[in-house]
Amino acid sequence: MSTIYLDHAASSWPKPPEVVRAMVECMEEYGANPGRGSHEKAVKASRTLFEGRKQLARLFHIKNPNDIAYALNTTMALNLAIKGFVREGDHVICTAVEHNSVRRPLEYLKAAKGVQVSYVKTDAQGNLNPDDLVSLITSRTKLVVCSHSSNLLGSILPIADMAEICRKHQVKLLVDAAQTAGTIDIDVNRMGIDMLAFPGHKGLLGPQGTGGLYIHPDINLDPLLHGGTGSQSEAIEQPTVRPDRYEAGTQNTVGIAGLVEGIKWIQKETVEKIHQHEWQLTQRLMSGLMGIDGVQILGPELGQNKTGIVSFTVAQSDSSEIAFILDQSFGIAVRSGYHCTPLAHQIAGTLERGAVRASVGCFTTEGEIDQLIDAVKEIAAHMQS
Amino acid sequence: MSTIYLDHAASSWPKPPEVVRAMVECMEEYGANPGRGSHEKAVKASRTLFEGRKQLARLFHIKNPNDIAYALNTTMALNLAIKGFVREGDHVICTAVEHNSVRRPLEYLKAAKGVQVSYVKTDAQGNLNPDDLVSLITSRTKLVVCSHSSNLLGSILPIADMAEICRKHQVKLLVDAAQTAGTIDIDVNRMGIDMLAFPGHKGLLGPQGTGGLYIHPDINLDPLLHGGTGSQSEAIEQPTVRPDRYEAGTQNTVGIAGLVEGIKWIQKETVEKIHQHEWQLTQRLMSGLMGIDGVQILGPELGQNKTGIVSFTVAQSDSSEIAFILDQSFGIAVRSGYHCTPLAHQIAGTLERGAVRASVGCFTTEGEIDQLIDAVKEIAAHMQS
Repeated sequence: MSTIYLDHAASSWPKPPEVVRAMVECMEEYGANPGRGSHEKAVKASRTLFEGRKQLARLFHIKNPNDIAYALNTTMALNLAIKGFVREGDHVICTAVEHNSVRRPLEYLKAAKGVQVSYVKTDAQGNLNPDDLVSLITSRTKLVVCSHSSNLLGSILPIADMAEICRKHQVKLLVDAAQTAGTIDIDVNRMGIDMLAFPGHKGLLGPQGTGGLYIHPDINLDPLLHGGTGSQSEAIEQPTVRPDRYEAGTQNTVGIAGLVEGIKWIQKETVEKIHQHEWQLTQRLMSGLMGIDGVQILGPELGQNKTGIVSFTVAQSDSSEIAFILDQSFGIAVRSGYHCTPLAHQIAGTLERGAVRASVGCFTTEGEIDQLIDAVKEIAAHMQS
Repeated sequence: MSTIYLDHAASSWPKPPEVVRAMVECMEEYGANPGRGSHEKAVKASRTLFEGRKQLARLFHIKNPNDIAYALNTTMALNLAIKGFVREGDHVICTAVEHNSVRRPLEYLKAAKGVQVSYVKTDAQGNLNPDDLVSLITSRTKLVVCSHSSNLLGSILPIADMAEICRKHQVKLLVDAAQTAGTIDIDVNRMGIDMLAFPGHKGLLGPQGTGGLYIHPDINLDPLLHGGTGSQSEAIEQPTVRPDRYEAGTQNTVGIAGLVEGIKWIQKETVEKIHQHEWQLTQRLMSGLMGIDGVQILGPELGQNKTGIVSFTVAQSDSSEIAFILDQSFGIAVRSGYHCTPLAHQIAGTLERGAVRASVGCFTTEGEIDQLIDAVKEIAAHMQS
């Protein structure tokens, strides 16, 4: 039984064949240390890192590729942004649908450094009213952190409107693009984003172990890591030059070689076309699920804009039981549980049993969606009987 | 002209073919998110992470594989260890041959948190007398950080002796195994190592983007990253369970799939045999270079134990010029400059012009060493004329 993979919000799979080919080429032809030598292989490795930055800069409309720092994953990028920016006594606002990769660093700063944290509420579908942000801003507010899309509900948050409010109040805006990089158009200038954290292994179609943070040139962060950069070796302090300042130690050259090809593939296909494809699949899935007794869909209603995520519950069943049956009996891979976002579950009313999350990707087909609908139909009928 | 790669201390290359094969298999067959789902592909990804921990635990004689946390690179592992352990007002001792990945985090803590830092001296060859450590220990000393081997000089530091001193004074010992993991036998219990930071892409023959930290079960570190772990999603705090506590965000599954095969290859070959092979090559290289007018070799003398590193200078030439000629005219890849270890250069008297560092690996041949010797002979003759 071949798997129907509907867990793209956790990691996209499969990748375009060019991604794997580039990784093999890197490993076999030039796997040297970038920026740590002047010989041919080291230079080629450095070029790969720069090519990745260039591709990312083009995708997100970032002026200077060196304003992008690579990271192991989005969580590392968010930790760099949050811990590097927020100071003792600051006030930070984030939304109620943030992932634990935002909530936990903030709650840590609250406990360890007396940072004040407020949560902007959303409605049950995960939609946010920008006016609710305004009322939380105080003179001590320094940063707003906002998911571009809820990883449970698939709702898209009004980044540009929030950015305008932030600008007006001289507050910086950090956006978590874990669920949108590569699938929803992002223009950091037009949208007013000061920092953008993104994964390499989801919508960008690269391998795991990649991701990064865009940092507006006016923002100076404390580095998360101190160490060697291959530059200014004699200095005791971390160099101030970008991207070295935020990239201590050897970077994941082979991962970035793959990521480059993932982004090129997306650019050829266009983000808009990928979004349309994924949106249509979510509409098909929602329509199908809506006809099944006992199934409740979370997030935005049919017809509204959203990412490729459809979360749902089946009667009073535990979500992990449904996911287990889907995997074992139908060969369909989805995710169950809390998806690292407990407050979003509180909003959606699913804090006790979690939710099943199906998430589509650019290679997902209508046929696969129909098979998921049929499987849920069968499971729901069995649960009710 | 095919390259003679003698830059293994920066990144080993090539890797055993099994490493690349395992990475391709991971990308093509099961590249899902480990620990974030219960479906077949996610379970397989989780197993890969655990298999890596098991292999590492066997190699370093670590009792519980879950006491190992993965990291992007050694620098990240060292930052986790140092920043997670050292508290305001503590005193830390490190050696004068430490890499910037140790020195810079410590100097940061000194500037930001009033941590006191002392450096134990070594002799010009990079050898350390453990008695010099004793005299620096005070009642406030909490941590000693020590490279297992200098990345410039190749000298091996007396870890077990230092560990005994640390134990006697109730001080913890963090060892940086960047230059020894996979090429010198490491037994954390026998050697008394409390924390061990290691890279995946050097002696362990894995890809870049991998590495990790062993943390003795008695040590509780503050996490470097806060975020999602796929466990205890509903808790505001980072979970206490290992390895989740120290591994927020998606791990580099494909990198670790490759690393697993690198370690297996080493275990089959044996660390002792690899060390012997590398040591004999350094002796051959040193003997050859010693016969060349104007060449001065740094580090331990002929016949002494050391890692696969031979650093040298040629008359008064700038090291980057020599490395450039070796690359361009002879196709030999070495590294020049300061190698992120300025204090070691001060000790060796090469702070003005840096040094050329040739470093061998398990696939390096005697013929390649002889070609390097011939090339340096030619360059030196030209420099003198």
